[in-house]
Amino acid sequence: MAGDNKLVKEITSMEEDFAQWYTDVVKKAELIEYSSVKGCMIILPAGYAIWENIQRQLDDRFKATGVENVCMPLFIPESLLNKEKDHVEGFAPEVAWVTHGGLEPLTERLCVRPTSETLFCDLYHNIVHSYRDLPKVFNQWCSVVRWEKTTRPFLRSREFLWQEGHTVHETAEEAEERTVQMLNLYADFCKEVLAIPTIRGRKTDKEKFAGAEATYTIEAMMHDGKALQSGTSHNFGDGFAKAYEIQFTGRDNKLTNPHQTSWGMSTRIIGALIMVHGDNYGLVLPPRIAPTQIVIIPIQQKKEGVLENAAKLKEALKDFRVKVDDSDKTPGFKFSEQEMRGFPLRVEIGPKDIENGVCVFVRRDTREKYTVKLDEAAAFAGKILDEIQSDMYNRAKEHLDNSLFSATTYDEFKDIAENKPGFIKAMWCGDVECEEKIKADTTVTSRCMPFEDTEAISDKCVCCGKPAKHLVYWGKAY
Amino acid sequence: MAGDNKLVKEITSMEEDFAQWYTDVVKKAELIEYSSVKGCMIILPAGYAIWENIQRQLDDRFKATGVENVCMPLFIPESLLNKEKDHVEGFAPEVAWVTHGGLEPLTERLCVRPTSETLFCDLYHNIVHSYRDLPKVFNQWCSVVRWEKTTRPFLRSREFLWQEGHTVHETAEEAEERTVQMLNLYADFCKEVLAIPTIRGRKTDKEKFAGAEATYTIEAMMHDGKALQSGTSHNFGDGFAKAYEIQFTGRDNKLTNPHQTSWGMSTRIIGALIMVHGDNYGLVLPPRIAPTQIVIIPIQQKKEGVLENAAKLKEALKDFRVKVDDSDKTPGFKFSEQEMRGFPLRVEIGPKDIENGVCVFVRRDTREKYTVKLDEAAAFAGKILDEIQSDMYNRAKEHLDNSLFSATTYDEFKDIAENKPGFIKAMWCGDVECEEKIKADTTVTSRCMPFEDTEAISDKCVCCGKPAKHLVYWGKAY
Repeated sequence: MAGDNKLVKEITSMEEDFAQWYTDVVKKAELIEYSSVKGCMIILPAGYAIWENIQRQLDDRFKATGVENVCMPLFIPESLLNKEKDHVEGFAPEVAWVTHGGLEPLTERLCVRPTSETLFCDLYHNIVHSYRDLPKVFNQWCSVVRWEKTTRPFLRSREFLWQEGHTVHETAEEAEERTVQMLNLYADFCKEVLAIPTIRGRKTDKEKFAGAEATYTIEAMMHDGKALQSGTSHNFGDGFAKAYEIQFTGRDNKLTNPHQTSWGMSTRIIGALIMVHGDNYGLVLPPRIAPTQIVIIPIQQKKEGVLENAAKLKEALKDFRVKVDDSDKTPGFKFSEQEMRGFPLRVEIGPKDIENGVCVFVRRDTREKYTVKLDEAAAFAGKILDEIQSDMYNRAKEHLDNSLFSATTYDEFKDIAENKPGFIKAMWCGDVECEEKIKADTTVTSRCMPFEDTEAISDKCVCCGKPAKHLVYWGKAY
Repeated sequence: MAGDNKLVKEITSMEEDFAQWYTDVVKKAELIEYSSVKGCMIILPAGYAIWENIQRQLDDRFKATGVENVCMPLFIPESLLNKEKDHVEGFAPEVAWVTHGGLEPLTERLCVRPTSETLFCDLYHNIVHSYRDLPKVFNQWCSVVRWEKTTRPFLRSREFLWQEGHTVHETAEEAEERTVQMLNLYADFCKEVLAIPTIRGRKTDKEKFAGAEATYTIEAMMHDGKALQSGTSHNFGDGFAKAYEIQFTGRDNKLTNPHQTSWGMSTRIIGALIMVHGDNYGLVLPPRIAPTQIVIIPIQQKKEGVLENAAKLKEALKDFRVKVDDSDKTPGFKFSEQEMRGFPLRVEIGPKDIENGVCVFVRRDTREKYTVKLDEAAAFAGKILDEIQSDMYNRAKEHLDNSLFSATTYDEFKDIAENKPGFIKAMWCGDVECEEKIKADTTVTSRCMPFEDTEAISDKCVCCGKPAKHLVYWGKAY
């Protein structure tokens, strides 16, 4: 029976040890392999194909809003990194430094980009001169490096893949509009493509991006109730423009600093996909992002007509990303493998089925089985894939909604933090000291001041009791 | 008139100074911008969009042959780089070294990958155990770093984009087959998509890849008669497998080393596109790779109905990559800009044209004009774009064929090298000393021992007069 064999037995159950379950899944689903480079992972075909789908669909959405892709250098000269004070303080402790080129020492150290604000500013300094040159809405797909001490596949690694958008605008309003537009684009993408509901909101000053005026975030909730920051969008105001001397002649013929934004989503989101949708049989991929949507598994494939009928079925399902597994493994092993890899649908077809003119569809998410007439297979697959996609979203949304707890006293807050996995809704005075105390006491951090759930639930800060300024969602986080 | 304005006057003519013409074109067509990182360029939207088209079309062709994409770390530990002797000798003098992570010195230096054979070998060492695990046909799209002393946009820069395929096979025959298959794939892609004819052949030992048993190459000829190595495919035999201890249990139950290949094409190919097809008005892009295939330029656009008709025309041409330039620049400037950027077709549409139910198409390559009925515009555009594509190839092929000169004596060889831009066909004894002498005397290098033109034109080495072993194509090269 599916799920009863060696492959599945090799993964720890999530109830027993969620962290180990995660590590087992990324390894057994062959998403990654560890490398000889400490803290850096290898993304294998099954993992990279997910990223390619994310990249293509996100990129199409970017381009529909006027984004243009560019490619910036991998290195940042130390002097360039140092120009914006907050930014360098935020990043310098975690960058990798190149000190030698070939056999010779460099006259100036170069860091491997941890993010590219400084390079984009340097470019904009050179190419933005008049309001006619604005806006510039550039993006790049690349890898960045941050010298993390402890690492985990997708969630935190010394090198990771991402996209980083960097824009420059004539007015503060336009920059703010772009910041929000991209945050919403990320939230829609997560919802519609990844079946991941998120909370949109603003970061507190403590948690915002080094050098930003405001950071907006989408926060997703993992199966274990922890948060994963899934995409961020920053409004820089004109701070970077001042530090990097980006100036343009405005419509009033005066020299002004433009306003800038940046926004990014990374391979961390694959970690979210795993931890939002996965189960004790392995990965569960939403149909819209799954590299393989349907796998056809022939039963008794050596019998006459089985492989031919599997091939016919594949042809009938050609509008989907479909493949036939005709390897010499047993059907049971193939079932487990399909479950481990998270392909949304499998179809079993054997001599008996062929005789009856049917095949058997099995959903990955619910493991429900459906016997379907062969000539109705394509219509059925389309319908059921849509259903899987929306069911997966609805289940994740329900989990999120059910894991939202309110606290009006600090005892209540601490009790929830200790006993109820999820987000804590609580009022905050606005002081960083309270954030720090809460973190020290409970390991919980402020996730965001939500856009949509803003009504005060008390007039006092949950931590210090002083007058409250903001409603904040708090949570443990990856 | 087109071509008579400031924009075009700003580029040097190719006859006057080809190198300066090249630099002017990449800059004025806004393909690149120089960066503050010495030797590294910024690829701007107009340049990056070309690379995106190359990437997508090449990637589709790869996948059709079973290639799977992966992502390897950016860094290589020094000890890992050092395992294959020829390889490290070839690359160590030109790599960038990371010595510090965050605030601390690393215990082992890491180089920024100049190429990733060593990393792929390390992966294959871990994941290849049985003949059932073979073949692995992996590829990655990434950037690599080589610390070049003199750099030129696209042609030679310290960081460049490429793809690198790395495969591992059960038998020597299969590896050789893959090596040739990928070389042919590159040649077909250059011919069919980039309209660039190439010479396929084998590199001499002096010119082959560090660590390879055999390197195959496609060599393109630039407008100035110089060669540009446009893609290479290497057969490693089992040398890397031995150095990196990759072993598998074969069908005979014995432990064996597998055979490997690697193959790559880089952003250098954009340099080839420019230098094969460009002219004194700027870039000329083949329709199949052009990010914009048709630009519609409204004439007297403020007059009633002009922009509406331009929009209608855009709709009629929606099967192509089309845009309307309705900026407030003059039509003359827009014409020059279209020519500089190399868009294959422009369409002019003004009040007079609309009255007559026509528009005017202008080819970028020949600058020919055609008056076309509005309701026939789409059919005409399709036909003429195909024609441009094949004409561009044919012209480049004619140039290549006309720039191939035979030499049977060394005096003849030196005369051609000095006076006739192009490739020199000459016999060679097989000794590296002759290659070195030829290079020292004439700056000409061996490009390849061609696959298709192998008949001996003499029985003596053109340099030393000893018995000849191979027919070689020689040339000056980028």
